[in-house]
Amino acid sequence: MKKADIGVIGMEVMGRSLALNMESKGYTVAVYNRTGEKTKAFAEGPAKGKNIIPTYEIKDFVEALESPKKIMLMVKEGAPVDAFIETLLPFLKHGDLIIDGGNSFFKDTIRRNKYLSEKGILFIGTGVSGGEEGALKGPAIMPGGQKEAYKLIEKIFKDISAKAYDGEPCVDYMGPDGAGHFVKTIHNGIEYGDMQLIGEVVWFLKNTGMRADKIADIMARWNDKNDILCSYLIEITADSMKQKHQGSDEFLVDRVADITRMKGTGTWTVQSALELLVPIPTIAAAVFSREMSQDKNLRLEMSKKISLTFNGFANNPEEIIDVAHDALYIAKISSYAQGIALLTAASSAYNFNLNIGKIAKIWRAGCIIRAQFLDEITRAYEANPDLPNLLAAPKFAAFVSSNIGKLARFIDMAHKCGVPTLAMSSAFDYILQITSAVMPSAQVSALQRDYFGAHGYFKINSDSPELMVNNEGKIREFHTEWLLPTRPEREITR
Amino acid sequence: MKKADIGVIGMEVMGRSLALNMESKGYTVAVYNRTGEKTKAFAEGPAKGKNIIPTYEIKDFVEALESPKKIMLMVKEGAPVDAFIETLLPFLKHGDLIIDGGNSFFKDTIRRNKYLSEKGILFIGTGVSGGEEGALKGPAIMPGGQKEAYKLIEKIFKDISAKAYDGEPCVDYMGPDGAGHFVKTIHNGIEYGDMQLIGEVVWFLKNTGMRADKIADIMARWNDKNDILCSYLIEITADSMKQKHQGSDEFLVDRVADITRMKGTGTWTVQSALELLVPIPTIAAAVFSREMSQDKNLRLEMSKKISLTFNGFANNPEEIIDVAHDALYIAKISSYAQGIALLTAASSAYNFNLNIGKIAKIWRAGCIIRAQFLDEITRAYEANPDLPNLLAAPKFAAFVSSNIGKLARFIDMAHKCGVPTLAMSSAFDYILQITSAVMPSAQVSALQRDYFGAHGYFKINSDSPELMVNNEGKIREFHTEWLLPTRPEREITR
Repeated sequence: MKKADIGVIGMEVMGRSLALNMESKGYTVAVYNRTGEKTKAFAEGPAKGKNIIPTYEIKDFVEALESPKKIMLMVKEGAPVDAFIETLLPFLKHGDLIIDGGNSFFKDTIRRNKYLSEKGILFIGTGVSGGEEGALKGPAIMPGGQKEAYKLIEKIFKDISAKAYDGEPCVDYMGPDGAGHFVKTIHNGIEYGDMQLIGEVVWFLKNTGMRADKIADIMARWNDKNDILCSYLIEITADSMKQKHQGSDEFLVDRVADITRMKGTGTWTVQSALELLVPIPTIAAAVFSREMSQDKNLRLEMSKKISLTFNGFANNPEEIIDVAHDALYIAKISSYAQGIALLTAASSAYNFNLNIGKIAKIWRAGCIIRAQFLDEITRAYEANPDLPNLLAAPKFAAFVSSNIGKLARFIDMAHKCGVPTLAMSSAFDYILQITSAVMPSAQVSALQRDYFGAHGYFKINSDSPELMVNNEGKIREFHTEWLLPTRPEREITR
Repeated sequence: MKKADIGVIGMEVMGRSLALNMESKGYTVAVYNRTGEKTKAFAEGPAKGKNIIPTYEIKDFVEALESPKKIMLMVKEGAPVDAFIETLLPFLKHGDLIIDGGNSFFKDTIRRNKYLSEKGILFIGTGVSGGEEGALKGPAIMPGGQKEAYKLIEKIFKDISAKAYDGEPCVDYMGPDGAGHFVKTIHNGIEYGDMQLIGEVVWFLKNTGMRADKIADIMARWNDKNDILCSYLIEITADSMKQKHQGSDEFLVDRVADITRMKGTGTWTVQSALELLVPIPTIAAAVFSREMSQDKNLRLEMSKKISLTFNGFANNPEEIIDVAHDALYIAKISSYAQGIALLTAASSAYNFNLNIGKIAKIWRAGCIIRAQFLDEITRAYEANPDLPNLLAAPKFAAFVSSNIGKLARFIDMAHKCGVPTLAMSSAFDYILQITSAVMPSAQVSALQRDYFGAHGYFKINSDSPELMVNNEGKIREFHTEWLLPTRPEREITR
């Protein structure tokens, strides 16, 4: 019997779908699951008659593979990944390859890569985005690890991946060790942001009196292929909001509970940002809003204890839709700018050597945040790989400059009818902060800190917002003796 | 020679000030520093002629102490604390007490408490707030550890602590092991929020054309003892903003660099919140804003690449000041509600058994966030220790309900003149979210997640926002097969 080109461990929906996808591209795939029933059900069900080899012992699984052996783990992140690595090790030889295709924490991936490298085993940690349908028909794939490890799997990954409209496969080498899983984590953080921003727009439109199907029509219009908002998430918002509830006249969206659950990646994104000192308020707003959504009992109780009334505003539906559209686009640019800033910071902190243009390129299809918008991002970074921030790309800068007032107007209209806009407001405030040569709020805080904690402060020049430096170009630092009556100021030398 | 009542290790400003404070209350204090020069300088300077025993060997230091020995570490958090514990251990006996008075990470404190307990040594981890002046004249003290350990130090702590206007000392037993350091961390997180909110108000007032001294006058007015905003941070904002720059006509605040530095506690607060799934968007906004302030070069560059123009708004100074005042008060309530929610969540997650009323009480004087406002919080929790959230306290709920429009108006006015209000907006949106019986944004996201990831969703009843449950009271869960043409919905049983 022909040996398998690749093996997949883990027969949950993602593992099964990937195995079928690989087989459909001409590969023979060995499969294994911790409990044999799932393997059996798969073998006798969707895999029947296909070049898929079911196995029930790890030894048999590994022996079914062509050398160098390529084994893809599609199991729950955390301990199960480590456990399978240990189980596999006795059967592997120098140059064999383990691929972790789950949503692993990138620091675990760095650790595993190092551990396996020392044993001569290659290791790829890869993001796979697109859900069940993506895994089956073509996901976006974000692999990180040794370059030679990537070479071993490149052809299979290119064959099974989604293809962008220009035919380019949505997979590329991201960087060493944890780079792939880090990029996937940030992808998910950006996805949280997109979902929250869309959710706030829908909430607002709903509070202006629109029904779900009307809002769905607006979203469908925004998903026109020539519209700047055209994207998978807008598409499924439009589609799902038209769905009726059990054949009734109610819309399903009005009966679905207002609880958005989450796994770990959104939280990891914010944690990474805190560690690297990168402000990502919009993505954090999305995570906090999910947390608040989960506190259903608290909200029910609080809604009875506090009643807020708002006056609303003069309501011109066409203006509202236009403002919401451009506001959402600006907020989206801001949110992506934050996520990309985090990628850039991590790239140098962890030596990932990430290429932002390339990342945006492989996000163009297959994954949840796929959108034409990503094409613009790729072009922006191809034109200038050293962009200080996505907002500085000429096309985005121009749109933001011309339309920022609409985002302000959106926030005000939403607030006037009592709709919270944590993500939209954060996106707006991020733009205002990052374009401020001087932030007076920080001047006040710097003085306060020197006052109560003798922490010192820097100065700006009298005729420009640049920092005051000495003759050697070193930033000058000062402290005022606030407790002395004359309050002398002295220069601090460290 | 009389033995010392307590010993202090670490002769930086906080250690020196605490030693002097203790001595001034009639205690004899032994002191030690890693490098002897600092001890010598202290002994020959401020400690001269006082009941302060300088020592230059750990052995001598420990021998100078009355048993059971009480040793307070005032050294940098992290490795130095562990190192001194190891150095001290050989000299200590069962029942002796080590106190860590630095800003240690609460999980380190939990670990150290356990480690020392096993050796029969008592351990207190305590927050000390108030900066140099507080340490010298009376800080707020937040000790956590064994109850019997607290008993050993209670009298000294009460004597040296700040006293509230009613004479109550600003110290109390917080709870076991890491409780004290956790409470201090959240104190600092709340302080970050307060500082950022004040900073945004000042920025806004400045952009309406007011000079620093005019804004200082407004702040001074808000610090009137009958004003709801009266607090130390408002007081020092007013005071420091009047300060001139090196005898010139410029104000110092206009020449101070817009860079707010930070140590670890604000970030720890947000990290804890993420871990415990507690939304604290306003405190996170403060941390992100400090990060953005530190990215001075990026902001300078971005300010040249993007120019934003705003139209401003009709400017009535008295109305502006009134709106800003009440907006700041509401935002402050929201920010404290977030911090207290985090304390409450941590209390059950880590078995701290915290008493919120008691915590607010000891924050009334001595510490950086001291304010009359904290009296209201104490009273609210004394009246109802099971408040679901600070915003539910009748007095706060009433003020918020009546004046929420002013916070919306503040945000809109600020945005209309291009001032970012990340913390103020987050405070507003938090109130709107937490009082929403239904969050339509979360309904949209729940459907999206089921659409792309088959994650399932709950439902609310057709006639009420409560979750739909089955006969046994279990929440019912559903999934729609979005990829099938008829889109059947089925109930999920887990």
